[in-house]
Amino acid sequence: MSETFSRADGRALDQMRPVKITRGFTTNPAGSVLIEYGNTRVMCTASVELGVPRFKKDSGEGWLTAEYSMLPAATHDRMRRESMAGKVKGRTHEISRLVGRSLRAAVDLSQLGENTINIDCDVLQADGGTRTASITGAYVALADAIAHLKAEGVVPGEPLLPPVAAVSVGLIDGHVCLDLPYEEDSRADVDMNVIMTESGKFVEIQGTGEHNTFDREQLNALLDYAEKGCRELIAAQKAALAGELR
Amino acid sequence: MSETFSRADGRALDQMRPVKITRGFTTNPAGSVLIEYGNTRVMCTASVELGVPRFKKDSGEGWLTAEYSMLPAATHDRMRRESMAGKVKGRTHEISRLVGRSLRAAVDLSQLGENTINIDCDVLQADGGTRTASITGAYVALADAIAHLKAEGVVPGEPLLPPVAAVSVGLIDGHVCLDLPYEEDSRADVDMNVIMTESGKFVEIQGTGEHNTFDREQLNALLDYAEKGCRELIAAQKAALAGELR
Amino acid sequence: MSETFSRADGRALDQMRPVKITRGFTTNPAGSVLIEYGNTRVMCTASVELGVPRFKKDSGEGWLTAEYSMLPAATHDRMRRESMAGKVKGRTHEISRLVGRSLRAAVDLSQLGENTINIDCDVLQADGGTRTASITGAYVALADAIAHLKAEGVVPGEPLLPPVAAVSVGLIDGHVCLDLPYEEDSRADVDMNVIMTESGKFVEIQGTGEHNTFDREQLNALLDYAEKGCRELIAAQKAALAGELR
Amino acid sequence: MSETFSRADGRALDQMRPVKITRGFTTNPAGSVLIEYGNTRVMCTASVELGVPRFKKDSGEGWLTAEYSMLPAATHDRMRRESMAGKVKGRTHEISRLVGRSLRAAVDLSQLGENTINIDCDVLQADGGTRTASITGAYVALADAIAHLKAEGVVPGEPLLPPVAAVSVGLIDGHVCLDLPYEEDSRADVDMNVIMTESGKFVEIQGTGEHNTFDREQLNALLDYAEKGCRELIAAQKAALAGELR
Amino acid sequence: MSETFSRADGRALDQMRPVKITRGFTTNPAGSVLIEYGNTRVMCTASVELGVPRFKKDSGEGWLTAEYSMLPAATHDRMRRESMAGKVKGRTHEISRLVGRSLRAAVDLSQLGENTINIDCDVLQADGGTRTASITGAYVALADAIAHLKAEGVVPGEPLLPPVAAVSVGLIDGHVCLDLPYEEDSRADVDMNVIMTESGKFVEIQGTGEHNTFDREQLNALLDYAEKGCRELIAAQKAALAGELR
Amino acid sequence: MSETFSRADGRALDQMRPVKITRGFTTNPAGSVLIEYGNTRVMCTASVELGVPRFKKDSGEGWLTAEYSMLPAATHDRMRRESMAGKVKGRTHEISRLVGRSLRAAVDLSQLGENTINIDCDVLQADGGTRTASITGAYVALADAIAHLKAEGVVPGEPLLPPVAAVSVGLIDGHVCLDLPYEEDSRADVDMNVIMTESGKFVEIQGTGEHNTFDREQLNALLDYAEKGCRELIAAQKAALAGELR
Repeated sequence: MSETFSRADGRALDQMRPVKITRGFTTNPAGSVLIEYGNTRVMCTASVELGVPRFKKDSGEGWLTAEYSMLPAATHDRMRRESMAGKVKGRTHEISRLVGRSLRAAVDLSQLGENTINIDCDVLQADGGTRTASITGAYVALADAIAHLKAEGVVPGEPLLPPVAAVSVGLIDGHVCLDLPYEEDSRADVDMNVIMTESGKFVEIQGTGEHNTFDREQLNALLDYAEKGCRELIAAQKAALAGELR
Repeated sequence: MSETFSRADGRALDQMRPVKITRGFTTNPAGSVLIEYGNTRVMCTASVELGVPRFKKDSGEGWLTAEYSMLPAATHDRMRRESMAGKVKGRTHEISRLVGRSLRAAVDLSQLGENTINIDCDVLQADGGTRTASITGAYVALADAIAHLKAEGVVPGEPLLPPVAAVSVGLIDGHVCLDLPYEEDSRADVDMNVIMTESGKFVEIQGTGEHNTFDREQLNALLDYAEKGCRELIAAQKAALAGELR
Repeated sequence: MSETFSRADGRALDQMRPVKITRGFTTNPAGSVLIEYGNTRVMCTASVELGVPRFKKDSGEGWLTAEYSMLPAATHDRMRRESMAGKVKGRTHEISRLVGRSLRAAVDLSQLGENTINIDCDVLQADGGTRTASITGAYVALADAIAHLKAEGVVPGEPLLPPVAAVSVGLIDGHVCLDLPYEEDSRADVDMNVIMTESGKFVEIQGTGEHNTFDREQLNALLDYAEKGCRELIAAQKAALAGELR
Repeated sequence: MSETFSRADGRALDQMRPVKITRGFTTNPAGSVLIEYGNTRVMCTASVELGVPRFKKDSGEGWLTAEYSMLPAATHDRMRRESMAGKVKGRTHEISRLVGRSLRAAVDLSQLGENTINIDCDVLQADGGTRTASITGAYVALADAIAHLKAEGVVPGEPLLPPVAAVSVGLIDGHVCLDLPYEEDSRADVDMNVIMTESGKFVEIQGTGEHNTFDREQLNALLDYAEKGCRELIAAQKAALAGELR
Repeated sequence: MSETFSRADGRALDQMRPVKITRGFTTNPAGSVLIEYGNTRVMCTASVELGVPRFKKDSGEGWLTAEYSMLPAATHDRMRRESMAGKVKGRTHEISRLVGRSLRAAVDLSQLGENTINIDCDVLQADGGTRTASITGAYVALADAIAHLKAEGVVPGEPLLPPVAAVSVGLIDGHVCLDLPYEEDSRADVDMNVIMTESGKFVEIQGTGEHNTFDREQLNALLDYAEKGCRELIAAQKAALAGELR
Repeated sequence: MSETFSRADGRALDQMRPVKITRGFTTNPAGSVLIEYGNTRVMCTASVELGVPRFKKDSGEGWLTAEYSMLPAATHDRMRRESMAGKVKGRTHEISRLVGRSLRAAVDLSQLGENTINIDCDVLQADGGTRTASITGAYVALADAIAHLKAEGVVPGEPLLPPVAAVSVGLIDGHVCLDLPYEEDSRADVDMNVIMTESGKFVEIQGTGEHNTFDREQLNALLDYAEKGCRELIAAQKAALAGELR
């Protein structure tokens, strides 16, 4: 562990990149948000569809599903477009499922009526943390979509639950770091994504020893940083939702 | 032909919607542009790849290819994501090919060296004219990408040709209209996309009698309007390129 | 522009290749036509299906859709079979859509009842102009299929509209040429496909400056030749339909 | 077993439908044949490609592969086009493989040089026996393609082996019948496809008790009829090949 | 024909490899069998689904369908997993269809009620004869599944027909051999799969001259051996079914 | 939290199901293991391929990749076969990636030479914990495959690292439980998969609040149980590897 460790962008170890949440980024979906974690930019939308998938039919409940994707030119080297390749990558599937599970923790499906909310997270620019930014931004889009549904009188109850936010933490050269950009993420020994609620409970933890393993003490240090990040992100979500929809 | 015909947004028949071109919209691709024709917004990028496809190998020439796509939530009703459906729609293929042909008219491949430029046009918000906005915006991204290549000393010659721009015109209730938004496009009797060079020559004309046929006189009136639109769009392209890259 | 320009097959610049239309080419579909433009040979069929696609259900109207395809051995060098490749080429999609739009201009869907007509254009031998031959031949197959439907008492009204035909024109070494075979098509500066009705109105115009741009004057010269070609093709369609169905 | 059994088209039980073989049906492939067994019509082509697939590289031997397909309108009710469905049916795969195996019995790959022959059998009109007609027709296309290769001096040896032909036989209401049309095929108790050489040896036998089983005696009766059919088909192949290529 | 011909594993020419049938191999499907022909091991299951495919709806009859597949590591060299390749091989389709046809000969669909039986044959280890082992094993799984259905009172009649079994025979260096392992199968001149009923009738015969043709006499010798093999296999099926389900 | 909580199969809360590891389950792959966690049975194989994927070429290092799949009849209700559906499910991709990452933590790629190890985990019978059983079993198959490589003299160094094992833990009605069968897994509030090394370090943690969130204290309790499970599993791996390969 080097005394002189410092982050490429000069941040403190437990400091988030600047976070910016723009509501009403586009106008067609019921909720549309551009979220930025530093140079990572994701367009998160929540579209509402009447009816539910077959396995939910006549349950009286709604459903929420999510799809994550990167635009081909989002990364430093252009990636092949999945629609043209005729194959969705395993990574894409994995993240889409994570986003869906996380957002379902923020909605009471029994209060939604038999409606479906489709979350789309399209990464315009990627610089690490795209899946966590997707979750944090999608919550805001979800809130706007539910407000829209309620204004239209379609939703019987109060489906929106308190905020859910997500952040990455990692171990780099023995240091715990919060909110990794691509440069740090690619060389981290351990990479962890943490999804939390406003009350500080975990929705999901995914920690991977990419180039090394980790012990219980390191885990706890990682979770401490993640908790700090999520608290700040939830504050940003609430500030954004308190503002006016442009 | 009604005396009282007026357009939903109050424009004159030969008036373009406000056009806005933002260079440097994202930072990873060599060229990245957000173009707006009113509410239609397309992210156009030009990515450079060393080498050429097999059919161009050892030709000493470069290649340019293009892909067009709509984000699922770009339209009023969310459309199924093509990568998840496992099928690219015929319309998508058709427009990708049109964008590719049009942009190849703006680049001298023999001056490009054996490099490939990949154009990506991703529609963030759709309100008619997405394919024409894609072409106009992609030219600006192409210009930035070529400037980038030249700055890096990779390109031997002067591959960039004078501007190419594109606009739609249509016949609605007997009136020729310039630059149709979705509402007009969907009920036009005739819909025409015109791609022109700065010198006023045609790169491509695609006119379709969607709900009616058209005669030579109407064709000429449509082309007059298109020419006016393209002139204005080329002025906007040149103004954008004269400014500083943010 | 060379004084001594002459076409490879000795035709005059405004002369069609020999056109042959064989009705009843096969017996299973309601309409089945073999059309030949010189060496280009396309089997065009019109099959009738009860019912309409979902988006037309309960509209009281019918629907017409079209698919174009090349047999693998139709071209000089065998092409990979699209079904085996698992991918339909963009060109195939583009032409299928063109054929569908063009033929829908020849049928009054409101008179068809809730029936669907499937047009199939399968190129047995390709020598340029396969999409235009497909449209011209498909009109004749469509007429036979509608006659068949009327004979069976399934169709309430008179769905068949006057003939629609299509031809290619191009600019080669500065000369306007009608009905380009492959050898001319591949080196034309401008390539245009024109679909017209019997009354001389345009259904669709697609003009592409493949290796060059073109101006309004050249456009008009191209359209003059296309009009002459379409008139002759419509005469051939009417002659074929006046004959007996073998 | 009814005394009064008679076939729908009045043929004797051991009588083939009229067989017609047209060489030079199209001009682009090295071999192109239209074969007709009554109303069944298949276009069989043999295209030559330099080089061999990877598993044959540097073997000094050639390769032969085959693809069978039905045009969508070949059958009484239009079938979905496999390329559009994105799926090749098991039946199509099965027949393609059968045609390939059968034709490889008619070519000495060691005499072919490192060239590949692609057989395509496209059914224009289906009335039973399409796979057997494909094999019989493809042999003639293969012979023409090899003659073409030899004329071009590409082939070192004498790759063409004596004729291979194929026919279906079946058990219908207890009667053995030769060369079943669709109407008989669909109600046969046993359906058998037999592929034979000129010397009366079997290349392949596929017998299926579709609605019943069969014993050794019935098998022998079926094979006797098949042998008669194949002898006649081989005579037709030889007559066609003795004629002039149109 | 060499005097000294002997088989690699020392078997007599007309001798089967050791056959082992394990019922109740897994517990979720209604029938689950592990069958072994020597080193070839196939897991055969029969799953029951209420309802029938569309083409059987309201027929009062049931349906049976089958899928065959090899695990990637079943063969000496690992094969690419078909689901990941995005393509099912022609060979897989061909065998699935064969298994389905063969098993339908062992069930009276009119006695099954509108239920569907899905047969799955997954090869755990391949050493020749996987398709024939699949059929023989699947019959036992089918019998258990039907017994299960009857015990549940879902099946109105007696759908199970007498046993069907399958074996391969081949010609190697002029000798007829029964039940070929991979080493023999890959160099056999003629390879034949024979599916028979308990009464000695043929359900299906597929004989292929892989590297040679064969005559009527050889065919009869092959069938004699196959009959012997099938009789022994049916004895093994009956013994297995007479035992207790573990 | 009920005093009377007890598990369906009578186990203590921190008790594993019976674990059984069978080496040499099949003979073709270099390593082949059947692992059982109670009724969950997975066949895990490790196949060796010379060479590495493109992104590892000339790195001097090896590669390890993994694929997980369920046989269609592994579950209580048969699932559609992914190869036939033409789509690999997101869940399958997600687990394949998890298995690959976990096993790469058990191999020193720099000691493997430019060889690739393909892990295949095929679930024969599913009763919860299939992904964790896959990882634990695959380590044993990997060890056998590396021993095989070393015996053949292909591997330069000592690529095998100490054991890695995996187990699931969950929160059910407020109780922490170890090694959940399907019945418990489907109703758990929190579900966590933990992958550990012999030294008690984490390779990966994936905790999901399926129906509820969880706090730090609960996390620690879950991890305690997981650690106990992994220790026992690693003992089982070592015992299996100490035995003779059948």
